[in-house]
Amino acid sequence: MSVEFLDALRAALGADHVLCEGDLSAYEQDWRKRARGKALAVARPADTAQVATVLRLCAQHGVTVVPQGGNTGLVVGSVPDATGRQLLLSLRRMHRVRLLDTANLTMTVDAGCVLQAVQEAAAAQGLLFPLSLAAEGSATIGGNLATNAGGTQVLRYGNARELCLGLEVVTAQGDIWDGLSGLRKDNTGYDLRDLFIGSEGTLGVITAATVKLFPQPAARTTAMASCASMELAVALLKSARHKLGAGLTGFEVMGRFALDLVARHFPELPRPLPGAAWTVLLEQSDEESEAHAQERFEALLAAALEDGLIEDAAVAQNQSQSKAMWHVRESISLAQAQEGLNIKHDISLPVSSIPAFCTQADAALQSAYPGVRIVNFGHLGDGNLHYNVQVPQGGDGAAFLRDHEPGVNKVVFDAVQAFDGSFSAEHGIGSLKREEMEQRKSPTALALMKAIKQALDPQGLLNPGRVL
Amino acid sequence: MSVEFLDALRAALGADHVLCEGDLSAYEQDWRKRARGKALAVARPADTAQVATVLRLCAQHGVTVVPQGGNTGLVVGSVPDATGRQLLLSLRRMHRVRLLDTANLTMTVDAGCVLQAVQEAAAAQGLLFPLSLAAEGSATIGGNLATNAGGTQVLRYGNARELCLGLEVVTAQGDIWDGLSGLRKDNTGYDLRDLFIGSEGTLGVITAATVKLFPQPAARTTAMASCASMELAVALLKSARHKLGAGLTGFEVMGRFALDLVARHFPELPRPLPGAAWTVLLEQSDEESEAHAQERFEALLAAALEDGLIEDAAVAQNQSQSKAMWHVRESISLAQAQEGLNIKHDISLPVSSIPAFCTQADAALQSAYPGVRIVNFGHLGDGNLHYNVQVPQGGDGAAFLRDHEPGVNKVVFDAVQAFDGSFSAEHGIGSLKREEMEQRKSPTALALMKAIKQALDPQGLLNPGRVL
Repeated sequence: MSVEFLDALRAALGADHVLCEGDLSAYEQDWRKRARGKALAVARPADTAQVATVLRLCAQHGVTVVPQGGNTGLVVGSVPDATGRQLLLSLRRMHRVRLLDTANLTMTVDAGCVLQAVQEAAAAQGLLFPLSLAAEGSATIGGNLATNAGGTQVLRYGNARELCLGLEVVTAQGDIWDGLSGLRKDNTGYDLRDLFIGSEGTLGVITAATVKLFPQPAARTTAMASCASMELAVALLKSARHKLGAGLTGFEVMGRFALDLVARHFPELPRPLPGAAWTVLLEQSDEESEAHAQERFEALLAAALEDGLIEDAAVAQNQSQSKAMWHVRESISLAQAQEGLNIKHDISLPVSSIPAFCTQADAALQSAYPGVRIVNFGHLGDGNLHYNVQVPQGGDGAAFLRDHEPGVNKVVFDAVQAFDGSFSAEHGIGSLKREEMEQRKSPTALALMKAIKQALDPQGLLNPGRVL
Repeated sequence: MSVEFLDALRAALGADHVLCEGDLSAYEQDWRKRARGKALAVARPADTAQVATVLRLCAQHGVTVVPQGGNTGLVVGSVPDATGRQLLLSLRRMHRVRLLDTANLTMTVDAGCVLQAVQEAAAAQGLLFPLSLAAEGSATIGGNLATNAGGTQVLRYGNARELCLGLEVVTAQGDIWDGLSGLRKDNTGYDLRDLFIGSEGTLGVITAATVKLFPQPAARTTAMASCASMELAVALLKSARHKLGAGLTGFEVMGRFALDLVARHFPELPRPLPGAAWTVLLEQSDEESEAHAQERFEALLAAALEDGLIEDAAVAQNQSQSKAMWHVRESISLAQAQEGLNIKHDISLPVSSIPAFCTQADAALQSAYPGVRIVNFGHLGDGNLHYNVQVPQGGDGAAFLRDHEPGVNKVVFDAVQAFDGSFSAEHGIGSLKREEMEQRKSPTALALMKAIKQALDPQGLLNPGRVL
């Protein structure tokens, strides 16, 4: 049966685009090298019609399918299992920009377009596609949408979901849904678009999308401020949202220990506000000018100083100072890796609960695992913390992780749940967080999800074992 | 069986909150008085637990349910049919503000809260809940979300969907899903929230919501400009979005004949730019001051004049002038009613296609129905037109509608479809547009919707005959 299936696949796509031999590790191994599977074959369709053919053949032959874009996910959601029976469906050959509509501020792109290429196509027209994340040179827009990617511009522009107006999807039955609407308002029936977004390839295969574009702001500039407590950082966020409105495009927070690690491992980087308990990085986009943005920053920060929200502040005077500030923020993960093994969390909370969460989780961790060092930083404006746990100074990292990773996760996720937060803010579920979801999500929500999965993919062909 | 059901209902809600007699027209007749049904009873639960009890009883006794909020919908989606066998489930007794979180910029409210009360609760904290529409004094937030309401602030803040972070929903089985998250990022499973939003009570009953709040801008001001063609109005929109960014909160267009009708029936109203082929109303929100907003308007409009995009312009010098400009815009519907019977359309298109659509639809209508008068106005910034057709001057309105309404609709919707638009931008489907949807939506989309409906409401108890 498998021979017959592969022959039909070759006839449909051309033998060159059905890979069974050679080094397939780029398709079979996940980004963080946590899992390596074995595919029955890698299918590389050229267009949507070929994707539909592939899915019809899979349905006919009962072959399960793992869709894959840039394969940069962090939760093992886009590689095949070890059985050698799953078809890896790579969308990477589909990378056309189908349409860029400057009056409608939309772009229609194939799912396999690399995120950076989408950004660049917009920029070439003086426009902004704001989705931005570390893996943007490899991640595809289809994968970004299938996982509802977040990134650094969520505070102002939203997640991938909020940046998408329409989708083209191939269903489990091999039918094509053309929902590539460039409409801002369309109340004709259920919201299929948002159902497919974030479903991680388990309900259908996204083959193209119409995304929102924005005018490029005239200037983008940054500032840093030091806060004596997380409460004060939250108060500064509130003030910045009131005074800068939609001009506030970034609000990151970094704990002292996170910046200590950066200073230890990258001593050549500047440390604008040494000794701060919490350092906040603010980014502002301005339609007028850099000077106007700086003035507004100075007014905000002067008032914050007077109100006792901050202890000190520095406004970037030029683009290179702005870049240096971001560079410090972006060096935290690397500094953590240099320091040694650690346990990472991608959590979100109501912003108002973050101070109490930190107090409670810090205390619970210290009590259960004395000496652990907490690297706390993240997108405070979105309520999204990378609340990471570095093993105790001088400890055996591998042994600590082996013995305590599940326990540490439980302490952190219990605290998250106590404050109505989420154990996966932007990374999704994939295979890695399935059990966590089964335990922590409400039974009603899980029952609804399972009913939807069963309705749309009754044969269970699409990315089985992921999400549900 | 119906006696037993009603007894159980009375035992659960109290006899006072199960209405079977007296004048029930507020519940049974739709807002535009196009349909009048007859309910088995009107159930008025006090809280979510009672809603769950009601739905469990309905499932047990096979009674179908029509959920209702303020009953202000325009497509006959919230009144019972004529059989006398449907339960009308009114959410209006549930109108608590459960939580207003100023640091998280969120508010959690019962579904039965009137929209205006939600706006006022936010304003009392110096915050803005931007959803705004004509029926806001009666419409409830639950109904707004069930129908994904639009309104006047969509350009900047989005539809009801984009303003909602979380929902509480009672399922067809009477289970409660608590998804009242106040999180900006949460990638744990399928997007149930957006599936319920806009599903018009056919997939579950929304009992509460957590919505987004925004800081109140320091100033909100308006301007008007005249454009010689719709192409130039679209070019002005593009320029305004580039120069004002997120500060641009409204961009309305009004055709000459629409304003002629206002002048004829409300001669006391000002007409700032007489003779304009197209008049644009721009609204700007500013975090700094009214003077700053006026300066930015003046710079935008001076450049537009120089570039030949506009012929003339007027910037409101104070709040009363701003209000007067909006008053003209809001008088169009009333002037239409004074003029006589007409056929209304609530359509959306990619903004870039609007000029060509208007040319084509105008010509097709004049050719098929010589003498019809087109009242074209709407939210150009959202691509949403109220493209209405007034019967020929001096014609018999009732006869024209009787003979030609379906034909006129077909001409308009065929043109909409040719330009990839939507035949229902913000009003939804209800009963009135079901056939239109069956004909115009892709079979794949319809099949997906029906599968979802079947999965979540296999007994077909929730608002049957609506949407699908």
